Amino acid sequence: MQIIDGKKIADDIYRELSAEIEVIKNLDKRLPHLAAVIVGNDGASETYVANKERACSNVGFNSTIIRYPENISQQDLLVKIKELNENNEIDGLIVQLPLPAHFDEQQVIEAINPNKDVDGFHPMNVGKMLVGIPSFISATPLGIIELLSRYKIETVGKSCVVIGRSNIVGKPVSVLMSRNAYPGNATVTICHSKTKGLKEICLNADILIVAIGKPNYLTADMVKEGAVVIDVGINRIKSDKTKSGWKLIGDVAFDEVAPKCGYITPVPGGVGLMTVASLLLNTMKAYKNKH
Amino acid sequence: MQIIDGKKIADDIYRELSAEIEVIKNLDKRLPHLAAVIVGNDGASETYVANKERACSNVGFNSTIIRYPENISQQDLLVKIKELNENNEIDGLIVQLPLPAHFDEQQVIEAINPNKDVDGFHPMNVGKMLVGIPSFISATPLGIIELLSRYKIETVGKSCVVIGRSNIVGKPVSVLMSRNAYPGNATVTICHSKTKGLKEICLNADILIVAIGKPNYLTADMVKEGAVVIDVGINRIKSDKTKSGWKLIGDVAFDEVAPKCGYITPVPGGVGLMTVASLLLNTMKAYKNKH
Repeated sequence: MQIIDGKKIADDIYRELSAEIEVIKNLDKRLPHLAAVIVGNDGASETYVANKERACSNVGFNSTIIRYPENISQQDLLVKIKELNENNEIDGLIVQLPLPAHFDEQQVIEAINPNKDVDGFHPMNVGKMLVGIPSFISATPLGIIELLSRYKIETVGKSCVVIGRSNIVGKPVSVLMSRNAYPGNATVTICHSKTKGLKEICLNADILIVAIGKPNYLTADMVKEGAVVIDVGINRIKSDKTKSGWKLIGDVAFDEVAPKCGYITPVPGGVGLMTVASLLLNTMKAYKNKH
Repeated sequence: MQIIDGKKIADDIYRELSAEIEVIKNLDKRLPHLAAVIVGNDGASETYVANKERACSNVGFNSTIIRYPENISQQDLLVKIKELNENNEIDGLIVQLPLPAHFDEQQVIEAINPNKDVDGFHPMNVGKMLVGIPSFISATPLGIIELLSRYKIETVGKSCVVIGRSNIVGKPVSVLMSRNAYPGNATVTICHSKTKGLKEICLNADILIVAIGKPNYLTADMVKEGAVVIDVGINRIKSDKTKSGWKLIGDVAFDEVAPKCGYITPVPGGVGLMTVASLLLNTMKAYKNKH
């Protein structure tokens, strides 16, 4: 059994991006620039945006955070997005989600220039991904693909079961795993709340990608010996063993599942650490597309 | 075993659309209008466009065919598309594919206003479909969904196996069958050239959708008793029993598979007859979206 080390891979990506930045600097060119819009003061959103800004700074990207109070109007936000779309100094543009309840999120997503949509949520990017032409792939599925690829895990002809059909993980990762490319070319089954006989389906899987948001959902009796298990869950549960009073666990009952696996991602320390690295990969891609 | 009668369902749709046209006429409103661009003089394309025009005429839609010689430039075609996009009298706009080899088809597809893209090939529509928001669904997958729906075939929690991962059938129909709606909510497995153990996978399927383009590919030993079989193949093979010297057969070995099925679509007379009906449904939808 081998642990897939999300921290190591993310650090590798940051190191590679830093090396690219050195080249760009030596050519006296403008640096890649990520702009993030944050509305309101949700604690989790603040943390995510701060992490993204720190990562940009560490690898040598420019970054800008644009803050708005919670009561900004949809129209004012759309005007700002238009301005950022037209700003040639900005390569990647994200609006931190979720937005406060009075916003039409889909309209905001569609207002972002697809060429700057490094979150990969714009329907143009989603559609291009499904059709199989170059696009921005959203952070979590791209992170999973990077992990599989950098650990050289065989996917061709493998049976891959995806549990969960969310727009940000289950659906896109199903598309990627069944595409005619590496990683991909797997025979993908996508499972969800209406699926019957899930245990038997999982027991046939060579690769299991679990993104259902239920702590310890995947148990050892559902996993074939030697399977690759990718745990996308990030569940906060109470704990009397930590100072904070809580800890993060995945959708996979790690302690019992891990011994059966060929490879497994831990939580924390797995897929979660890849999301910011993926965002920076996309920002570098947006920058290169322009040059 | 029940035959799914594509001709009957298509005729039902035409009748429903005609009834809607009567209402529109009685209100003295402009009629729905489909414009089709055809480049070159490929025989099959001519036939398809003529069928679409005839169907428009029969239900009472306006239709326009714009013809260009094979040597028209990409630029001239894009200019024409822009003009048609801006023409408020036109609701649906299609460019008959394939285009001659010197065209960049993807650029042409992306030039069409997504709100008029009744073929559903624009990445905006593909992406919205995957995300699960209203969009134009392309003709063949929409036709399959209509057949399942109008025959009230249960799909929730069923095991659905899709053979083929093309952009025009396999991928979109997989997305639709696994979405949280009816028809849908099935547990979908998408199979392709790299799939191993296809026979066993098929034998587990409650619903089989075969879109692989190989005559008589799906044989009786691959089909579970009572399965629903949707045959998307249209293969032209030599025949000494027809005047033309050829006949159309599907991807399913109909004679041996049909007796095992709960439902099955024949070829011809099944899914193929639904594509023009689907196009007209989309054109009516585009018309209504504007009114």
